[in-house]
Amino acid sequence: MKKLTSTQIAEITDGTIAGDDSCTISGVAALQEAEPCHLSFLGNTKYKPQVLPSLAAIVIVPPDFEPDAPEGRCWIIAENPSAAFSIIVAEFAPPEIVFSAGIHPTAVVDNSARVPEDVHVGAHAVIEADAKIGAGSTIGAGSYIGHGCVLGENCRLHPNVTVLARCVLGNRVVVHSSSVVGSDGFGFIPGVQSHEKIPQVGIVQLDNDVELGSNVSVDRARFGRTWIKAGTKVDNLVQIAHNVVIGERCFIVAQVGIAGSSVIGDNVILAGQVGVGGHVTIGDSVVALGRAAVWGDVEPGLQVGGEPAIPRREMLRQKACLKRLPDLVKRVDALEKGE
Amino acid sequence: MKKLTSTQIAEITDGTIAGDDSCTISGVAALQEAEPCHLSFLGNTKYKPQVLPSLAAIVIVPPDFEPDAPEGRCWIIAENPSAAFSIIVAEFAPPEIVFSAGIHPTAVVDNSARVPEDVHVGAHAVIEADAKIGAGSTIGAGSYIGHGCVLGENCRLHPNVTVLARCVLGNRVVVHSSSVVGSDGFGFIPGVQSHEKIPQVGIVQLDNDVELGSNVSVDRARFGRTWIKAGTKVDNLVQIAHNVVIGERCFIVAQVGIAGSSVIGDNVILAGQVGVGGHVTIGDSVVALGRAAVWGDVEPGLQVGGEPAIPRREMLRQKACLKRLPDLVKRVDALEKGE
Amino acid sequence: MKKLTSTQIAEITDGTIAGDDSCTISGVAALQEAEPCHLSFLGNTKYKPQVLPSLAAIVIVPPDFEPDAPEGRCWIIAENPSAAFSIIVAEFAPPEIVFSAGIHPTAVVDNSARVPEDVHVGAHAVIEADAKIGAGSTIGAGSYIGHGCVLGENCRLHPNVTVLARCVLGNRVVVHSSSVVGSDGFGFIPGVQSHEKIPQVGIVQLDNDVELGSNVSVDRARFGRTWIKAGTKVDNLVQIAHNVVIGERCFIVAQVGIAGSSVIGDNVILAGQVGVGGHVTIGDSVVALGRAAVWGDVEPGLQVGGEPAIPRREMLRQKACLKRLPDLVKRVDALEKGE
Repeated sequence: MKKLTSTQIAEITDGTIAGDDSCTISGVAALQEAEPCHLSFLGNTKYKPQVLPSLAAIVIVPPDFEPDAPEGRCWIIAENPSAAFSIIVAEFAPPEIVFSAGIHPTAVVDNSARVPEDVHVGAHAVIEADAKIGAGSTIGAGSYIGHGCVLGENCRLHPNVTVLARCVLGNRVVVHSSSVVGSDGFGFIPGVQSHEKIPQVGIVQLDNDVELGSNVSVDRARFGRTWIKAGTKVDNLVQIAHNVVIGERCFIVAQVGIAGSSVIGDNVILAGQVGVGGHVTIGDSVVALGRAAVWGDVEPGLQVGGEPAIPRREMLRQKACLKRLPDLVKRVDALEKGE
Repeated sequence: MKKLTSTQIAEITDGTIAGDDSCTISGVAALQEAEPCHLSFLGNTKYKPQVLPSLAAIVIVPPDFEPDAPEGRCWIIAENPSAAFSIIVAEFAPPEIVFSAGIHPTAVVDNSARVPEDVHVGAHAVIEADAKIGAGSTIGAGSYIGHGCVLGENCRLHPNVTVLARCVLGNRVVVHSSSVVGSDGFGFIPGVQSHEKIPQVGIVQLDNDVELGSNVSVDRARFGRTWIKAGTKVDNLVQIAHNVVIGERCFIVAQVGIAGSSVIGDNVILAGQVGVGGHVTIGDSVVALGRAAVWGDVEPGLQVGGEPAIPRREMLRQKACLKRLPDLVKRVDALEKGE
Repeated sequence: MKKLTSTQIAEITDGTIAGDDSCTISGVAALQEAEPCHLSFLGNTKYKPQVLPSLAAIVIVPPDFEPDAPEGRCWIIAENPSAAFSIIVAEFAPPEIVFSAGIHPTAVVDNSARVPEDVHVGAHAVIEADAKIGAGSTIGAGSYIGHGCVLGENCRLHPNVTVLARCVLGNRVVVHSSSVVGSDGFGFIPGVQSHEKIPQVGIVQLDNDVELGSNVSVDRARFGRTWIKAGTKVDNLVQIAHNVVIGERCFIVAQVGIAGSSVIGDNVILAGQVGVGGHVTIGDSVVALGRAAVWGDVEPGLQVGGEPAIPRREMLRQKACLKRLPDLVKRVDALEKGE
């Protein structure tokens, strides 16, 4: 079994030893779950009280951490304990699974599709006519790539992903299982007898380094494209409607829903369960706090929260007043009685 | 490359030319993304300020639109610019993908299943015993049709759809990828040592012209049926629990959740992220605004919003007061001080 | 067609006949949908007014039910009408579908995988290298079991489920269609030019008798495990982020989202659309009401609701005051005017 000493860990992580430099660990764990054979880390000040009681022999801590390590244990002081911890996690990680180049004999690849030799196409995957897959990509088992899709290099589609006709993915795009790229936008002309479907003939374009989590839905555009720009990361169970445009390097956290034609700037963070209305414009670097209901436009750089979403400070003031509301009612009662 | 002139567009859309009748376009785009070779449209008054700055040579506008088109550009005046635009979108749309009749050699179709000759069964699809597929239907690659399911004519199941045993779909039902029809309802008898599963032996019935988006879950009934009536359209990532009944021609927008045994009338609109509690009755033509939490019954025709959902007007008044709450606290402070 | 009389039903359900003991039914239905040939039940006091108008010949009611059954109909008095009804539902349920032992010829099972003879592996399922499946399990058509996964005995994976590498499932674990176990946790080191992915090298562990609904996402841990303990039931479209720990026998209702590293005790109920923030601790036996936004820790045994979630009683008081807020504003107006 692989083992690392305090000294080795300090070297690997570029950290400083504080305490017993002969501690030895053979794995990693969270503070509360750790055994004496583990290394752990303090990544969130909330967990500071867990460091001393933890059984972990070695803990990676930030520079200002106190108190000293007790006898037989050791702190490794690092500027960014979480990043340092990731380095040690990698040391003990199981070997990465290799999906070797080649088309599995059960995969169905149309003759007109272009699949370079170094691409992995998993069992039961389907690649339709005129699709192009970039070099070095991995198409997971059971995944479906529709007619005329274009995938860049080194894309990674996990098993059971669906990418429908004509969608375009850049390089290094990652899509997790059960996600759907290019389902029809939700567009109908309402009628009294029945609703008429508005053809959704556009595409979805995912630029370089976009990552989609599992069970994500990205609808194709009514015309033109639904577009997620480079470096944006999308968590699980997110809904992205037709003709939405999301800028570069955004974080779209789990269960967010973005309605049709909304335009989101660069470096935006939409926290979990946020809703964004249709035809809304959100400026660069906006942060929408968890569950915010963004029904209207938001200026660049704002932090917003609440329903409807308003600037964070205002929202907090409202929430604080709301807490005091029962008391306020009593005070008004008293004033009316002339007390 | 296909091209259309102002005159041709006016003819096709039954619109009126206002401006240069010799403009020529070779594609469609949104106002802000348009190049001079594009036609665009004003479908939402919010975008009115974008019409003049747009580079689009031709813009479809409503009858009351002002100002006039500048030189070298052209407005097409139409009663319903969005519908007229769809007609032109169709002119430039790529040819529809044809899924030709026949069962793909890799599909697994039970001998007892009835699949007419004009049905398309995609690669790796599975059709279990005693299932019946209606004429003209398309079963996407990797889709699963359980034992004894009955699908009507001209249904369209996109790739990787799951329809479980004994569910019944009408004619022209559309189901998008990764959606599940007939997973077990969430029913358990709670116990101290363990919870006992309540058998879910009913079915799901989707009537004619129902459309389900991607990643939708419709649970089978505990007994009888979970039932979505004719013409109702369901967006992505929607949860429909066991024994729910949804009326005709409803719009159930993305990420809505409807708890068990609730009954929803005809022509209801549930906007994005709405939640409906269990055993709730919602009358015909109700509109629940985005994120409404409908914990109780709603009379026909009402517009409701908020949490818990209340009539829209009341909700707006509350929200307005809430905004003024910090100020109200100060005013009560002042009154108490006798100012 | 199978028929049961009042007397037979009383015997089977251990109930007491009140009314006509010669009634005969040939099926079950909800009170409002029932025909004279049906048995129905009163499982929720809300439906009490539906019992008399119902056409059901026989209705299972609780001990205190009034009035008496009219001529030609019959009540069956049972301590737990819903449980008694389930027994009769089972009498009329279609025969359960048998997925017979054996590996379908189209399934792709790695030579190194261990699959006992009594396991059912459906069409087009994929079982990767070094995976172990427990005796008596059913792997649905199109499902994917990743490298080194371990499944216990009598597990049931419905069609099109994805379980990714190295995840561990106990005995009798049920996973419904389109759910994903082991997608990557959403972890990135934010950068100005691009975000760097934090490797997610942990696993997901689902203990005995866990059930996951359809379209559920459970992310693998950054390190260690995302862990759902024995007997917990998870509904559809739920998001469970990396390193979350959920205790025993919880109910996690549809569309709940639980952010990273949160720890949930035993016997917890999270109702529909609840959100739980990251690094939150929820004590044993907590109930979070529908749509609650649990951003902070919750003491054991509490009922919480609202956004942010607060104790139920406090939340109801706030909601009540909120309703009276427009009136309160008027009263303060009046006080200021000296009325």
